[in-house]
Amino acid sequence: MLGVCYYPEHWPRERWAEDARRMRECGLTYVRIGEFAWSRLEPEPGLFDFEWLDIALETLGKEGLKIVLGTPTPTPPKWLVDKYPDILAYDREGRVRNFGSRRHYTFSSETYRLETRRMVTALAQRYGQNPVVAGWQTDNEYGCHDTTRSYGPEDAKAFRAWLEVKYGHIQALNAAWGNVFWSMEYRHFGEIDLPNLAVTEANPSAWLDFYRFSSDQVAAYNQLQVEILRAHSPGRFIAHNFMGFVTDFDHFKVAQDLDVSSWDSYPLGFTDSRMPGLSDTERVFYARSGHPDVSAFHHDLYRGVKARWWVMEQQPGPVNWAYHNPSPAPGMVRLWTWEALAHGAEVVSYFRWRQFPQAQEQMHAGLNRPDFRPDVGYSEAQQVAQELQKISLPDTSKARVALVYDYEADWLYSIQPQGYSWDYTSLALNFYRALRSLGLDVDFVKPGGSLEGYALVVVPSTPIVRDATFEVFKSAMGTTVFGPRTDSKTESLNIPANLPPGKLGQLIPIKVARVESLRPGLSTTVTWEGGQYQTSVWREWVESDPQPLGGAVATPTATFEDGKGAVWQSENRHYLAFWPTQEFLTNYLGKLAQAAGIQTHALPEGLRLRRRGNLTFAFNYTADPRPLNVPEGAKLVLGNRVVEPYGVAVWKG
Amino acid sequence: MLGVCYYPEHWPRERWAEDARRMRECGLTYVRIGEFAWSRLEPEPGLFDFEWLDIALETLGKEGLKIVLGTPTPTPPKWLVDKYPDILAYDREGRVRNFGSRRHYTFSSETYRLETRRMVTALAQRYGQNPVVAGWQTDNEYGCHDTTRSYGPEDAKAFRAWLEVKYGHIQALNAAWGNVFWSMEYRHFGEIDLPNLAVTEANPSAWLDFYRFSSDQVAAYNQLQVEILRAHSPGRFIAHNFMGFVTDFDHFKVAQDLDVSSWDSYPLGFTDSRMPGLSDTERVFYARSGHPDVSAFHHDLYRGVKARWWVMEQQPGPVNWAYHNPSPAPGMVRLWTWEALAHGAEVVSYFRWRQFPQAQEQMHAGLNRPDFRPDVGYSEAQQVAQELQKISLPDTSKARVALVYDYEADWLYSIQPQGYSWDYTSLALNFYRALRSLGLDVDFVKPGGSLEGYALVVVPSTPIVRDATFEVFKSAMGTTVFGPRTDSKTESLNIPANLPPGKLGQLIPIKVARVESLRPGLSTTVTWEGGQYQTSVWREWVESDPQPLGGAVATPTATFEDGKGAVWQSENRHYLAFWPTQEFLTNYLGKLAQAAGIQTHALPEGLRLRRRGNLTFAFNYTADPRPLNVPEGAKLVLGNRVVEPYGVAVWKG
Amino acid sequence: MLGVCYYPEHWPRERWAEDARRMRECGLTYVRIGEFAWSRLEPEPGLFDFEWLDIALETLGKEGLKIVLGTPTPTPPKWLVDKYPDILAYDREGRVRNFGSRRHYTFSSETYRLETRRMVTALAQRYGQNPVVAGWQTDNEYGCHDTTRSYGPEDAKAFRAWLEVKYGHIQALNAAWGNVFWSMEYRHFGEIDLPNLAVTEANPSAWLDFYRFSSDQVAAYNQLQVEILRAHSPGRFIAHNFMGFVTDFDHFKVAQDLDVSSWDSYPLGFTDSRMPGLSDTERVFYARSGHPDVSAFHHDLYRGVKARWWVMEQQPGPVNWAYHNPSPAPGMVRLWTWEALAHGAEVVSYFRWRQFPQAQEQMHAGLNRPDFRPDVGYSEAQQVAQELQKISLPDTSKARVALVYDYEADWLYSIQPQGYSWDYTSLALNFYRALRSLGLDVDFVKPGGSLEGYALVVVPSTPIVRDATFEVFKSAMGTTVFGPRTDSKTESLNIPANLPPGKLGQLIPIKVARVESLRPGLSTTVTWEGGQYQTSVWREWVESDPQPLGGAVATPTATFEDGKGAVWQSENRHYLAFWPTQEFLTNYLGKLAQAAGIQTHALPEGLRLRRRGNLTFAFNYTADPRPLNVPEGAKLVLGNRVVEPYGVAVWKG
Repeated sequence: MLGVCYYPEHWPRERWAEDARRMRECGLTYVRIGEFAWSRLEPEPGLFDFEWLDIALETLGKEGLKIVLGTPTPTPPKWLVDKYPDILAYDREGRVRNFGSRRHYTFSSETYRLETRRMVTALAQRYGQNPVVAGWQTDNEYGCHDTTRSYGPEDAKAFRAWLEVKYGHIQALNAAWGNVFWSMEYRHFGEIDLPNLAVTEANPSAWLDFYRFSSDQVAAYNQLQVEILRAHSPGRFIAHNFMGFVTDFDHFKVAQDLDVSSWDSYPLGFTDSRMPGLSDTERVFYARSGHPDVSAFHHDLYRGVKARWWVMEQQPGPVNWAYHNPSPAPGMVRLWTWEALAHGAEVVSYFRWRQFPQAQEQMHAGLNRPDFRPDVGYSEAQQVAQELQKISLPDTSKARVALVYDYEADWLYSIQPQGYSWDYTSLALNFYRALRSLGLDVDFVKPGGSLEGYALVVVPSTPIVRDATFEVFKSAMGTTVFGPRTDSKTESLNIPANLPPGKLGQLIPIKVARVESLRPGLSTTVTWEGGQYQTSVWREWVESDPQPLGGAVATPTATFEDGKGAVWQSENRHYLAFWPTQEFLTNYLGKLAQAAGIQTHALPEGLRLRRRGNLTFAFNYTADPRPLNVPEGAKLVLGNRVVEPYGVAVWKG
Repeated sequence: MLGVCYYPEHWPRERWAEDARRMRECGLTYVRIGEFAWSRLEPEPGLFDFEWLDIALETLGKEGLKIVLGTPTPTPPKWLVDKYPDILAYDREGRVRNFGSRRHYTFSSETYRLETRRMVTALAQRYGQNPVVAGWQTDNEYGCHDTTRSYGPEDAKAFRAWLEVKYGHIQALNAAWGNVFWSMEYRHFGEIDLPNLAVTEANPSAWLDFYRFSSDQVAAYNQLQVEILRAHSPGRFIAHNFMGFVTDFDHFKVAQDLDVSSWDSYPLGFTDSRMPGLSDTERVFYARSGHPDVSAFHHDLYRGVKARWWVMEQQPGPVNWAYHNPSPAPGMVRLWTWEALAHGAEVVSYFRWRQFPQAQEQMHAGLNRPDFRPDVGYSEAQQVAQELQKISLPDTSKARVALVYDYEADWLYSIQPQGYSWDYTSLALNFYRALRSLGLDVDFVKPGGSLEGYALVVVPSTPIVRDATFEVFKSAMGTTVFGPRTDSKTESLNIPANLPPGKLGQLIPIKVARVESLRPGLSTTVTWEGGQYQTSVWREWVESDPQPLGGAVATPTATFEDGKGAVWQSENRHYLAFWPTQEFLTNYLGKLAQAAGIQTHALPEGLRLRRRGNLTFAFNYTADPRPLNVPEGAKLVLGNRVVEPYGVAVWKG
Repeated sequence: MLGVCYYPEHWPRERWAEDARRMRECGLTYVRIGEFAWSRLEPEPGLFDFEWLDIALETLGKEGLKIVLGTPTPTPPKWLVDKYPDILAYDREGRVRNFGSRRHYTFSSETYRLETRRMVTALAQRYGQNPVVAGWQTDNEYGCHDTTRSYGPEDAKAFRAWLEVKYGHIQALNAAWGNVFWSMEYRHFGEIDLPNLAVTEANPSAWLDFYRFSSDQVAAYNQLQVEILRAHSPGRFIAHNFMGFVTDFDHFKVAQDLDVSSWDSYPLGFTDSRMPGLSDTERVFYARSGHPDVSAFHHDLYRGVKARWWVMEQQPGPVNWAYHNPSPAPGMVRLWTWEALAHGAEVVSYFRWRQFPQAQEQMHAGLNRPDFRPDVGYSEAQQVAQELQKISLPDTSKARVALVYDYEADWLYSIQPQGYSWDYTSLALNFYRALRSLGLDVDFVKPGGSLEGYALVVVPSTPIVRDATFEVFKSAMGTTVFGPRTDSKTESLNIPANLPPGKLGQLIPIKVARVESLRPGLSTTVTWEGGQYQTSVWREWVESDPQPLGGAVATPTATFEDGKGAVWQSENRHYLAFWPTQEFLTNYLGKLAQAAGIQTHALPEGLRLRRRGNLTFAFNYTADPRPLNVPEGAKLVLGNRVVEPYGVAVWKG
């Protein structure tokens, strides 16, 4: 189904009914509303004004539209900030982050939690049982604009309390962090400062705990909203709209309290400015379509985060916030929508109904132009709505390949990259892009999540393998490929006593005796089955454990120039002792997939496949037609056997 | 005429008479003096010491030199800063900008306005009727070192007052800025903060008003000085020396209160470090001559700012402040002087008389070396003085081409570029350089300034077209070329209700339905009269208005690859729906100029022409001789038909 | 001899004895200990705990190891910081530099000097006469992490006092700094602020005095520790471990109070991230060996700083702190050790005994791995220890070439580079690398240090030539080559009254009439003996003095394109009026060396020579064998006539 984000408070009341009518005509079902409207809902302290929202909901409801009501907490009004300046966040440089845009609060502010409770309760009491309200969105894009972490006095206070709960006694913390080093020992929790603004790098264990604490604060804040909404709004789902490439908090954890995960999909902005690991040539080539894996990566991630998931905001035209903001190629709004549906999205909701000609996002397109006429996105959304009436979407089926995605890994490596080029998201994308280029469907699984039923599991890098995660790895029946640095740290960000990999050494009896990071231009060659692969960034020196437990043996299946093992295999488990390029992974994973009985397809540049139940979708992200190998007997239900430029094809069977 | 900047306070008194004598011998007429001397004029609070300045003026006057006396307000002394720390400015990061160099005050400080009044009054009373004093310079290089805008408590206070005057009621401001967006609504003016240090970008309308306010503060501060000087110094002109590439305030507006505009011309520093849009190859090629258009651009600008204009500071040798500071090629000091005179400068004044061997500018050359001997610049200045005795300069005549230059455009696009490569000065330079390469003279006109009599008008981009400006465009008889984004915003930085261009749509009946910004490497092709032009940065999708007012019709005269119109023409008006390169503009404007009866000249690299009355000047900015097409019957009054390297030629008729 | 850095406080007590035994077995003699252990030595204010250190010393001593005991002042514990927040430093942006890593104090804090006195006295009293203690190390790596200069209130106070001592009267300071410029005059010392955070660049004379003051504060702080140690620990040497490429304070001056200078040698980290003037290609080529001159440069520097010198920390494997941290090529730990010994090191001490699996440096290798097994470095250190038993090292003999190295030059040029590419260390390295590539041994001499006995002296650039330095230059008998800008400033950072070079003009009768800095790509050609050399960065216009004192005459021996002199010679003194490349210097200095009777060797890429007494050492920094020209009759005592990759050869005679 399709939806749209709408801001009735931006438009004259007399226009609402026509807007609602045209939404229906376009084929939209859901309307998200209200998430930035605090100053209209409570224009003066304690003085609520719900009248306009009552009418807006009524007007939309009359056309049969269903409402996702957002809590307005991303934008506390000026009077609230002036009354309680302690709600403001601080940046890493120690400066207050002022009112004037959005997300101007810290999750650690007790005051802001009280204010949030007050506002969300009022809203939930008013609309919790409104028949038009189908669900809720908590806040908006947690963490966007680097707002997960804050460095002010409220944060320090909350961090100390969090540490005290975690460690109990200060000596436990000192031991875990290794504070004897550089005389960093604390005598009590009250002595602990935030790790920013130290003379040189602060203790990485302190940073990691601060990052975990910051992530937990998001989860706790979200839970606070969820509890109120559940209490007052039975039968409605609760969602949050996560932002792509925001990895500062654990989305799996936040989503535990939600019914629906959703994300905000801006393929062109991401391709221009946020997706790591692309060359300039790739950014230019995909400037008008978005990189073919950038949305899919997030679709698969958020389906992993929660079985029910939406695209809450879908880019409908040029945006305003990337370094460069090109216009999507004709057809791309339709293609993006279909790609989301192919990946299992319950709803794709466009952002926004109409381009608002004022303020920060005035250059962000909508389905409609500021002059009230339909924009290109409107027609393409309408086309999808019509196509959807002809195609019945089956349930999303489980993939045969799983990727273990680890937020903590991203935090840990950003704290301790050990080499400027090491970046967790880049590495995860190398694996993901390789799998996608083989035409494979991929499920994302959190560390410790069940791997049952997967024929192939890739673990790009999970530096901390907790007991539960280890047990899952141990019991996984599929072929498993572990990337470099997996299990290289204890929970406290220490090197395991017996060298990495820690527990994993029980499954693959190796020891990583030495590691190195390499500057661009300094590469090493990995030889595997006669092929040679240049790699850079990272290399490890691995010894096979002379006394493996349980008799398992690890043997090298690929070697470095100096003859040392580059890939180590022990039964169905593989360990990569270097930074694997997409090229290597395509070949290596392709072979493992085939061995595991998974059919692969060598896809040409820019063509991608995705299955949903008995439907197979093909997407062409390029300006050239792309011929398909549609299987014998399959029935095309959309598109042609040569997928048109920026086009979609779907077949059954 | 020629002049020089002189600091008697830097040199022993016994040397002043000899300096004065040698100035006269060099052929200089004017001496600027005093603008940094506060600590010598008032060494202790309230204790004025004018004795040394009395003698200095007398000494210079004895040689027949005329004085431009500067007010010493750019450098309040330490005791004043310590007494009134509220005069200090704050940077955008929220830090106080301390004493220790210059321009350490904010224009918004009421205290500093009182102190300024006190000092300027004392100075004007003392010297206002001194016969040696020919004129005044207010302060020095307003805005230099990013000092137009300040972000402290004094600025916030003044900004709120300015907003209250502008909007009257807070709801008018909320409506104009679109503050309903993101709950940014204010309840009263006292709630408004400065737009810096917000969590993410603040409202662009708030920024634009803050930039306008900051510009107005400069004008008000300058007016304060002017009023005092006028009251006490009848018959003397008042000037200010503007700094090249400082665009943070409206020089047209500040100059309304002045008699003479002047600017500080450092062609090598600007070419190395400040002129946008040059390749590294160009910066190297012109490293020793300055780019051939960098000074001319400013000459034409300041002649537009005020009919009477000077070069107050002319680079005389290597400077100290650019990233790299090469030595001018032999002859360049002479060439620069002649270029200024050709453009209509009343006086060219060198900075400075003698290199001062101490403090911040000790590596900045003067006409004389620190060892009291003449430097290269001295000889070249003297040569011009001698040549000037043989050539009588006619009045500057009006050009046939006008360029509408818009400070506000620069502010607006810096606030909302919508793509990293968009830069107003670069765009204006593309037009200007194209016109110069065609051998054309250009007048600069402010938005709303009269365009009467111009055969060709170029408007690189004026995003806000006010009523008065529109009326001028409407009544302009010449061919007019509007660059992209012209009339794309209302006064409040909103998108016009009926899409851009706003009012201009009445003259060229088009609508800009969509825009995009392009990353480097992502280009689009414009085809015009069989030629193909690669452009990047910006593209627009233009629709011709189906119901144009008054029957005018717009037709495309150039097209993009997808067949859409890239240039739209309606009668004698042209609209460019893309970022025009210099190459395109040279061809397009060349054709329009010829059609308008203006003769063009395809000049070789580095050769430039300029007319003043019946004289034509040719300048060779390269190390190679450049042959000229001197018209039949013209009489060379300087130089040869082959202009020598770094040389000048002048002919009459 | 060899040593190691050891942190018993990081390891269980029961392991100490085994560690000590294995140190002995490895062939180590010295153990540095204690320099970060304040929180263990004084866990609560005033409560000292020496018991663990007593045992550690005893345990090490039992194996015959000698102790270098470090004072723990680089890491005051948290309770001390909380008790006395005034000990914290401020960064140039005005922010406090907090606890959480190390070096979190300012040298100017009176409180911290008292606390230092308290701690060092306690330590010296306890261990000053302990027979195991052979010597002391004061603090650790002064200045590391940009900690020489601090910008807080304590620093301002101390700076004012320092200035008052230096200048006596405020008018002397005003005159020296040229404060009449820009009205920067002070009325008394209390008015002086630190030079950071001014609106634009502050007075360079103020900066230079602030840098000198900051250097003096380090020396005074070190002296404070030395005095206490001398009083309580007779017969023990006192050292400090300087950090490579830290040039913010005068190491010559600090070392005056020491017995031994030492430095911390990390060839790979330096080559990757700190050594200036290398191309990316060079950084890749030498990524695993370190640039062949980076350690030697420092060895020669610290031998110049103090006749007795150590490498206190020798890189034993990959490190953690550079941008990229590759693994050393096999053999490099041995090679680096031998290179240090060849240069005269008394002891080479590895950092650290065992990789510590926690905290900031957990990724920094040691001689042993975190799993308690020996790492590669252990074997290579042991190999050197064994080789040392067969080779008796003669005393280090004086070189025939001296390089005058000037810390103040580095400060001055960082304050006033006059062109972005000017960097003192790069220039000094150009000279040094040229000499090394000629196979020459080099002694480093401070400005004013004796040049007696040197056949060739190079002075890369000493901008301030004080009287004593001038006298040394005047009396030097060897050929002397002065680089550009030598003697270009007075002690107060003014241009000499009679133009540069100041006093040096008496020896080489020239005047530098003009200088320029050049952007990359803008080069000039120097022609010398038929060869042409492209140079960039810097050029000077030199006039020969028409009235030289004493009848000396300067003549150009190389010329620029415009025919002006590029190198000027007056008897045995040479002045380079441009930025000399390594290529030019290799040829020019090679010729001068030969003329001075010094034999040169054109060494292939990556091969280096160094003599110690009658031993000649050859080092191969490349992966390819390098044949040697071992003289007739010489006897190889280590290695072969073809030096193996990353190998060493030594011959006698």
